Amino acid sequence: MVNITVPKIQEYLLGLADEDDRCVLEMERIAGERNFPIVDRLVGRLLFLLTGLKKPRLVVELGSGFGYSGYWFARALEHGRVVLTDYDEKNMQYARDVFRKGAFMDRAEFRVGNAIEIAKGYQEIDILFIDIDKHQYLDAVQTLLPNLGRNALVVADNALWYGKVAGNKRDRETLGIKKFNHYMAGHRDFFTTILPLRDGALVAYKVS
Amino acid sequence: MVNITVPKIQEYLLGLADEDDRCVLEMERIAGERNFPIVDRLVGRLLFLLTGLKKPRLVVELGSGFGYSGYWFARALEHGRVVLTDYDEKNMQYARDVFRKGAFMDRAEFRVGNAIEIAKGYQEIDILFIDIDKHQYLDAVQTLLPNLGRNALVVADNALWYGKVAGNKRDRETLGIKKFNHYMAGHRDFFTTILPLRDGALVAYKVS
Repeated sequence: MVNITVPKIQEYLLGLADEDDRCVLEMERIAGERNFPIVDRLVGRLLFLLTGLKKPRLVVELGSGFGYSGYWFARALEHGRVVLTDYDEKNMQYARDVFRKGAFMDRAEFRVGNAIEIAKGYQEIDILFIDIDKHQYLDAVQTLLPNLGRNALVVADNALWYGKVAGNKRDRETLGIKKFNHYMAGHRDFFTTILPLRDGALVAYKVS
Repeated sequence: MVNITVPKIQEYLLGLADEDDRCVLEMERIAGERNFPIVDRLVGRLLFLLTGLKKPRLVVELGSGFGYSGYWFARALEHGRVVLTDYDEKNMQYARDVFRKGAFMDRAEFRVGNAIEIAKGYQEIDILFIDIDKHQYLDAVQTLLPNLGRNALVVADNALWYGKVAGNKRDRETLGIKKFNHYMAGHRDFFTTILPLRDGALVAYKVS
């Protein structure tokens, strides 16, 4: 479905990404069974790497689903905390259960409601992770710019949107992602790259 | 030639990576004209991003060619310095000229000779960049492990070796890269990812 990295390379990369954390494995299994969209293990590992490098005090996720990406942030945190947000109370309840099992409750908050509105209540965000409806990405980053800390990271999932960003599709989601990518790439306060992992992860480093 | 990311996606990514630095543009032009292998602009931007996040005092490159990757490190440095190494005196001379033009001479050293031997003279390396002969990667990282600083990054170019790592080729280079990737992925001191940019960039974070 995602047509970005050559399949045999994707397999090779996954083969080098062994995992023995029972919570990660359980979430991956459930995502597969229920066809629930999660960033995959390779993107999870990217989040872990970026968190290790950035050493954030505050990570805010817009659109946490049932907590897979949030769990990767939590694993990598040394001192800080991660705020998970989702519209669905049941998703947040499941995330709570998994974080309890992983012994990460002390470093997480679980908030139900409109992700952008919730995030506006936080200042000095070190990593902002965006995985909400695709037409809302641009609004999200524009709204939350004042809430970002110095040298913050903005990380956005689905930045290549099944490869559709490179085509002529004009649906709301594709246009939303294209506008967002273009905005970030052209913004003088950000140094932006898109990594072609799974469905594309945009990583933007705030240079101010 | 490099068969890793779908071509139209590669084009899209390059289209979002505008550049106006005359030294970068000159080096890219010369690399094209002479068919001289360089990490491309997307990998260059990855090096810039990682350097911004890591804020290294010391970057050591094994195999700098004529200085393209080293120039991206230099651009991103706030305080530290980058050590470039190459067997070829002419490459180092060219790199010196470019760094002078870019006004980066104060943050660079240029060393001619065996890269691994030269690197052994440095302690507390924050970023080790590996781009020498592919069968030497494993030896390089094993030899230089004691020279790495806390939470060092190891970054290696060509980690997917034209996609050959996912096949059954048994030439010295392919086997060398496969062994290196396997070693890094299995090493308990490193958290390792391979990013499928151009020919693959291995990024390993030292967790100790």
